[in-house]
Amino acid sequence: MKPVCLVMGAGAGIGGTVAKKFAREGYHAVLCRRSDEAGLEKLVSQIESDGGSASGYLMNAVEPDVIEDRIAQIEKDIGPIEVVIFNLGAQIGDRALADTSQKQFELGWRMATLALFRVAQCVCPLMVERGGGTILVTSATAAMRGNAGQHSHAAAMAGRRMLCQSLNAEFSPKGIHVAQIIVDGAVDAPDTLGKMLGPEKFAALRDSKGKENDGLILPEKVAETYWHLAQQHRSAWTHELDLRAHSDRPWWNH
Amino acid sequence: MKPVCLVMGAGAGIGGTVAKKFAREGYHAVLCRRSDEAGLEKLVSQIESDGGSASGYLMNAVEPDVIEDRIAQIEKDIGPIEVVIFNLGAQIGDRALADTSQKQFELGWRMATLALFRVAQCVCPLMVERGGGTILVTSATAAMRGNAGQHSHAAAMAGRRMLCQSLNAEFSPKGIHVAQIIVDGAVDAPDTLGKMLGPEKFAALRDSKGKENDGLILPEKVAETYWHLAQQHRSAWTHELDLRAHSDRPWWNH
Amino acid sequence: MKPVCLVMGAGAGIGGTVAKKFAREGYHAVLCRRSDEAGLEKLVSQIESDGGSASGYLMNAVEPDVIEDRIAQIEKDIGPIEVVIFNLGAQIGDRALADTSQKQFELGWRMATLALFRVAQCVCPLMVERGGGTILVTSATAAMRGNAGQHSHAAAMAGRRMLCQSLNAEFSPKGIHVAQIIVDGAVDAPDTLGKMLGPEKFAALRDSKGKENDGLILPEKVAETYWHLAQQHRSAWTHELDLRAHSDRPWWNH
Amino acid sequence: MKPVCLVMGAGAGIGGTVAKKFAREGYHAVLCRRSDEAGLEKLVSQIESDGGSASGYLMNAVEPDVIEDRIAQIEKDIGPIEVVIFNLGAQIGDRALADTSQKQFELGWRMATLALFRVAQCVCPLMVERGGGTILVTSATAAMRGNAGQHSHAAAMAGRRMLCQSLNAEFSPKGIHVAQIIVDGAVDAPDTLGKMLGPEKFAALRDSKGKENDGLILPEKVAETYWHLAQQHRSAWTHELDLRAHSDRPWWNH
Repeated sequence: MKPVCLVMGAGAGIGGTVAKKFAREGYHAVLCRRSDEAGLEKLVSQIESDGGSASGYLMNAVEPDVIEDRIAQIEKDIGPIEVVIFNLGAQIGDRALADTSQKQFELGWRMATLALFRVAQCVCPLMVERGGGTILVTSATAAMRGNAGQHSHAAAMAGRRMLCQSLNAEFSPKGIHVAQIIVDGAVDAPDTLGKMLGPEKFAALRDSKGKENDGLILPEKVAETYWHLAQQHRSAWTHELDLRAHSDRPWWNH
Repeated sequence: MKPVCLVMGAGAGIGGTVAKKFAREGYHAVLCRRSDEAGLEKLVSQIESDGGSASGYLMNAVEPDVIEDRIAQIEKDIGPIEVVIFNLGAQIGDRALADTSQKQFELGWRMATLALFRVAQCVCPLMVERGGGTILVTSATAAMRGNAGQHSHAAAMAGRRMLCQSLNAEFSPKGIHVAQIIVDGAVDAPDTLGKMLGPEKFAALRDSKGKENDGLILPEKVAETYWHLAQQHRSAWTHELDLRAHSDRPWWNH
Repeated sequence: MKPVCLVMGAGAGIGGTVAKKFAREGYHAVLCRRSDEAGLEKLVSQIESDGGSASGYLMNAVEPDVIEDRIAQIEKDIGPIEVVIFNLGAQIGDRALADTSQKQFELGWRMATLALFRVAQCVCPLMVERGGGTILVTSATAAMRGNAGQHSHAAAMAGRRMLCQSLNAEFSPKGIHVAQIIVDGAVDAPDTLGKMLGPEKFAALRDSKGKENDGLILPEKVAETYWHLAQQHRSAWTHELDLRAHSDRPWWNH
Repeated sequence: MKPVCLVMGAGAGIGGTVAKKFAREGYHAVLCRRSDEAGLEKLVSQIESDGGSASGYLMNAVEPDVIEDRIAQIEKDIGPIEVVIFNLGAQIGDRALADTSQKQFELGWRMATLALFRVAQCVCPLMVERGGGTILVTSATAAMRGNAGQHSHAAAMAGRRMLCQSLNAEFSPKGIHVAQIIVDGAVDAPDTLGKMLGPEKFAALRDSKGKENDGLILPEKVAETYWHLAQQHRSAWTHELDLRAHSDRPWWNH
């Protein structure tokens, strides 16, 4: 029985690509995402035709019990969750305070912060019992500083970041490696950036900023760093690192 | 008609003491707190017998509409809200992940993060229209770093901190001074620390750490800094500062 | 005998204006600056004609012994140094690495970092012996983040910032209030910004960004915050705060 | 001709171990260290008997011209420097301000901050001309926060950190990957920790905290992360990460 790598937020960008990487390295990848069943099945097929093993589930992570039930089912039917890739996003684009509804603000928190809390409550006791585990959390610029138009996103991602520090404080000595990856720039991801921009603008951006300029963060390169983090020896664990394209300025410079 | 200083979280510690200070300086203080009607009335009476003017309301800030309705009523019946002191706490003591319920985690966020978002949505448009205003937000060590047992508190306070940065980014150029005060240590406050410790332990701590050692943060001294922040000229505004007793180590040293 | 407020870096901007404020409040201000004897004498005269008392000395703070000797002389001839305003700057404008000489890099450190170390070595033992004192250190955006063209300035100011944290850790429990003020924007200061820009550009900037827009940080407003910091009760000391014009974006937003 | 990996501060801990790793992966390692010629030769021999290629030089990096001359000689006689591992330390143990001499304070800065500036001035133009390069800088807890007894170390390491951010801002868009590794805990290194503690205490610490507890940071595990950083694709570069033993608390938690 293969160990399981559970990927929450498994779109065609970082989530799905990290899932492929872990599947290629011997994990059974469990891919969860909110919508697009066809896209989900495509990812699972790609992993399988690549010789790996994977399962896919649609999941709306803000609904009650769905996270808890899915993790219980995976543990019962598929195998022990050794690695969690928590990759749920909560970006809603730039919105002035007056254009951010209380509902959106709450939804952002439910996805970005509360869902991680729920995942941790399920998997941490199991990992502690089994002597170890890895929780890799995708983070974003907004976790590091608020900005105009980011009322919802920054509050939610900052909550996530401090939750990661709290989880690390309690569980690192018990063998669980909690790490956060601050993705500080635009990712070459059709499911998120692509949808936000629309196909034409996304294609244009790929041509100008991406391609041979390597100015868009490439998910398959990001996956190498997620894999490295999961391989670190417990005498030398990283809790936080940033990732950005060489041509982009870090958040503290713009 | 006096300008209004609205104090959310007006207990016998920082909130009530800042309310007294602003009342003494000419504001009508509106004190809101969740419980203890007798304590609330006592604060209002103290302000009035000191020559100031004040109103008090019990308010459970996690309930729908109560914030929005109260602010509308104040603006209609009492006067324009010129200053908000946002002082709602969400400390629930040290709790392991397993001992933190989803409900508590959510409640912490509703008080510490969402309530500020709701207040800001109500008062910011009014302040922008009137050409200015001040929002002073009490913050805590937990906003700066997560820790074991702080899963709920750190996530909620970090969300609050980044929300403050976002509010500042949108509204500082429009004349609203948003500032956060990182209270990094134990406050000599009977309503919070006192209740957490119980009367005997609190008295003992006051004797050992407080009193002539000045090792507990004194609310009336804190109030001086809140007042100073509200008086800063808009060419030289502070967005964030820390406060601690001289004998305490800052959060980055322990 | 009045207590002494020693101002290192007493130009016509923050340094000299803070000196005036403390003189007005009852201190004997000792103003030290590198050059411009006429400017120095003018500041001293202004303080005296305002009813205050002051002395002025030219001092090149990177030379050996001049700091140590001056402090010894002040303590002997004028009075006990109760407050230090450490306001030496080390901005040399934007310079690429190739255009920054080793000599400049060293000079920046000697002014911004080492000079504070030397001042602290002189005054801290005296202040501890006398039961207290205050050291207020002007800091800058560059202490918070490096940037292109800031190789020398950022390294020097970051060294200063961490030195302040170390001084605070050792001396705060012994009654010395060490605080740093992050000046995060352009200051309306003829001796620094004015000289860097030249008279015409400076006048134009004052008209467009300053004046009724209050977009330049006004030294006399900054002085209010320095004074407030020096007045804080030791149960509620601030170690770090930022200051910027309402219309400017904080360093983390640009 | 192999590309060169220049290691500044090549002792038996992180520096020498990273050198071995890069030599194993195909680089010619150039090891520089201040003293212990026998230790230096041993490292070179180990690399060579492992099938790699290396050179070793004693160098006191605070002396004028030695860095500049050595880099010129390497470029002329050995090969192009593709990777720099900047690993010079400046820890002098806990010292009160009164026990820290001005000379020590200056020496710390010369090793930790100025030497990196000098290295960067030599290699950056070469790397830019050649289209790329990597500079990996070992950093420490003291770069993140000052503490009692760390006056010299914290100031020097903070200067180094902000210099790294400045170098990154100027040179990342030109293809040079500048990354800093915050080593936040005790390293199992005989040349530094071992010498500081003496042989008996070091052996005891290795037994209690290290060994099967993995509570000391193991240099050969650290080397894996340095190698990973050097392998990152330029669309997804890390500028800063932390490393600590699973059982240690991060700097923000103690």
